[in-house]
Amino acid sequence: MSRFFSEKYKSLTPYTPGEQPKDMQYVKLNTNESPFPPCPAVVKAAEDAAKTLQLYPDPDCRDLVQTLASRYAVDTDEILLTNGSDEILNFAFMAFCDDKHPIVFPDITYGFYPVFAKINHIPYEEIPLRDDFSIDVNDYTGVNKNIVIANPNAPTGMTLSPDEIGRIAASNPDNVVIVDEAYVDFGADSAVRLTKKYDNLLVTQTFSKSRSLAGGRLGYGIGSKALIADLNTIKYSTNPYNINRMTAAAGIAAIQNDDYFMSNCRTIAENREKTAQALKALGFRVLPSRSNFLFAESDSIDGGTLYMKLKERGVLIRHFTLERIKNFNRITIGSAEQMDVLLSKIKEILEETA
Amino acid sequence: MSRFFSEKYKSLTPYTPGEQPKDMQYVKLNTNESPFPPCPAVVKAAEDAAKTLQLYPDPDCRDLVQTLASRYAVDTDEILLTNGSDEILNFAFMAFCDDKHPIVFPDITYGFYPVFAKINHIPYEEIPLRDDFSIDVNDYTGVNKNIVIANPNAPTGMTLSPDEIGRIAASNPDNVVIVDEAYVDFGADSAVRLTKKYDNLLVTQTFSKSRSLAGGRLGYGIGSKALIADLNTIKYSTNPYNINRMTAAAGIAAIQNDDYFMSNCRTIAENREKTAQALKALGFRVLPSRSNFLFAESDSIDGGTLYMKLKERGVLIRHFTLERIKNFNRITIGSAEQMDVLLSKIKEILEETA
Repeated sequence: MSRFFSEKYKSLTPYTPGEQPKDMQYVKLNTNESPFPPCPAVVKAAEDAAKTLQLYPDPDCRDLVQTLASRYAVDTDEILLTNGSDEILNFAFMAFCDDKHPIVFPDITYGFYPVFAKINHIPYEEIPLRDDFSIDVNDYTGVNKNIVIANPNAPTGMTLSPDEIGRIAASNPDNVVIVDEAYVDFGADSAVRLTKKYDNLLVTQTFSKSRSLAGGRLGYGIGSKALIADLNTIKYSTNPYNINRMTAAAGIAAIQNDDYFMSNCRTIAENREKTAQALKALGFRVLPSRSNFLFAESDSIDGGTLYMKLKERGVLIRHFTLERIKNFNRITIGSAEQMDVLLSKIKEILEETA
Repeated sequence: MSRFFSEKYKSLTPYTPGEQPKDMQYVKLNTNESPFPPCPAVVKAAEDAAKTLQLYPDPDCRDLVQTLASRYAVDTDEILLTNGSDEILNFAFMAFCDDKHPIVFPDITYGFYPVFAKINHIPYEEIPLRDDFSIDVNDYTGVNKNIVIANPNAPTGMTLSPDEIGRIAASNPDNVVIVDEAYVDFGADSAVRLTKKYDNLLVTQTFSKSRSLAGGRLGYGIGSKALIADLNTIKYSTNPYNINRMTAAAGIAAIQNDDYFMSNCRTIAENREKTAQALKALGFRVLPSRSNFLFAESDSIDGGTLYMKLKERGVLIRHFTLERIKNFNRITIGSAEQMDVLLSKIKEILEETA
C-alpha cells in the first residue's frame, strides 16, 4: 500500500478470482467456464472486427443492444451492456445503494457482493440460507432494503422460481431487487419478463458461461428504462467505451447462433445430472443444481483435502474457506470426458484415503 | 432518472464522447483515431485468441505486463493494464483523491477529469492555462494537492518537458501527480523514466492512438510498486477480468511490432506539420501540437460554424462549446489524403463565406 492510498479504501479486501496456475495443464473445473469453444461464426465476427481496431467502438453498442433486445423481447433502452457482468453489478451497487439504502444478500452467495458493498461504502447484511442451503423467500419479502440474489445461486446452484422473484420485487416496491442470472441458461427460469411488470427489478446476465465468451468479457442488465438510464449515467461517468469492437461483434454473432449455445447448455445440464448421480453413488451429498456446476461434500474426505489431492492429480476444482461451506467443493461441469477424469481421480483418492 | 438513483449521483453530468453518426460515411477527424489499421500480426494475434474465448483471461495479464515492462524498462509490478486509459484514470482518482486530497488540473484539458472528480466526490480546482494556452509550471509547483496533467495536453496538443514534470513531482512530494500521456508517441517526451525517481508519479498511456487499438480498449499506468498495488486493489474490487483475451493478445503483438506503429506515428507527425502550415496559410491560428491533432481557430469563420459546414460536407472534426475555446476546433491528423480533403473543404467554405 502506498502512503497516498485514500483512507476510504485502506481496509478493502479485494475479490479473489479462481486460480489460473500455469505450472501445468489442468483439467480446469474451477471457474465455471464452458468446455465448448464459441462457434465458428462468433470467431469469424471477432476476427473481422479485429481488422478495424484503429476505430473506437460505438459506446452505445447499438447493434448489439438491438440484437439482444429482440432476443429477450424488451426495448433497446431497457438493456445496458458491460465489460462482463461484474461491471453491471458494480454499477448497480453504485447507482442504487448508499448509506440510506443498504443491501442484503444470502450469507452463501457470489463472493463479490460484499466487495462491491465495501468499495462503495454501502451497509450490507448477509441473510443465512436455510440449513439445506436454499433461500427462504420470506427472508426477502418486505425487507425495505435493496436486494441482490444470484439465481441460480452460486456456489450452491439452487434456484428460486420467477414467482418467488416476483413476490420479492412486489413486496419491496421502494427498493431495487437485483437478480444475477449468470447461470440461468443451464436449466433455471429467467425473471427477465418480470422487468416489464416491476420497475424495481434489474436482471443481470452474462455471455461468459452459456455463450462461451468468458474471455470476451460481456455482460448486461435488463430493467426498466429509468433504471437503465441511471446505470448509463454511471457508465458514461467512468468508462464510456467499456465494450471493445471484437467482443461486441462476437456478442451479436453469439445471439444469432443461439441454437448452438443453447444446445451446449443442454449437454452441460445432462453431464451435470450424470455427474451428480455418480458423485452420490460415491457417497457425496450433492446440492440440486440448475447451473453449470455442482456443489458437493463427502463424509469420507474433507473439502480442502479433496481439492488439494485433485490438484496434485491435475484436476482443478474450487474450494472456499468460509466456515459454513468449507467441507464442500464447487465443481464446474465440463465435457463428458473431463467429468470421467474427475470421477476416476476422486475414486482413486477415496480408495487411497479409505 | 429512476426514483431509486442515489442522491450521490443525481447531479452528475456524464462525459460526452465524440459523436459517431451513422447517417453517412464521414472523413472522421473527430476522435483522434489512427488512420492506420493495426498490422497483420496484431490482427492475427486477436484472431487466434478468439478461438479460446470460452476461457477467462488471465486477470493479471502476466504476458502482456512482461512485454510492456521490457519495452519501457520498468518492473512488472510497476505496470497495471486497464480497459482503456479512462479506466486507469478513474482508478487513480478513486485511489488517491478524496475530501482531504483534492485534485487540480488545467481549465482547458481532457473533459473527463471533472467527471472523474464529480463521480468520486473529489473537490477539484481548474487552473487557467496561460493566454497562449500553455501550462505555467509554476502554477503546479508546491500546490500540495493531487495533480493531473495531460501531456501533450488535449485539446491543445501542447507539451511540458520531462524536466518540468520532474519539478512538479519533486515539489509536491506528499501528493500524487498523474501524467496522462495518451498522445505522447506523436513527438513528445515521456516522463515514464521519472517514475523510478518519484514515488508519487503515475504515468498513464494508451494503445488507442499510436498503436491503432482504440477499438480494443487497452490502457495502462506506470508508477511505483506501491501506487500500482493500490490501483490493483481498486481493480480487484470492481472488475478483475477487465482485459479480454483478444485485446491482451493484440497488445502483446503490438509491442512486438513497435517499429510499424512508431513509423506510423512519424508519418502522422509529418502530416500534422504539413496540415498546420496549410491551415496557417489559410489564416488560421494553430497551436504548436506534438499530438495527433491540431487545435486551430480562424478570424474569418467562427468555430461552431466551421464545424457545422465541414460536417455538411462529410468531414467530422471536434468542436467544444467551452467559452474560452469555442472559436477553436480540434482536428485529428489522418492520412495525407484525408488531410487534403479537409483542406479543400475548408478552402471551399472560406471562399463561400468570404
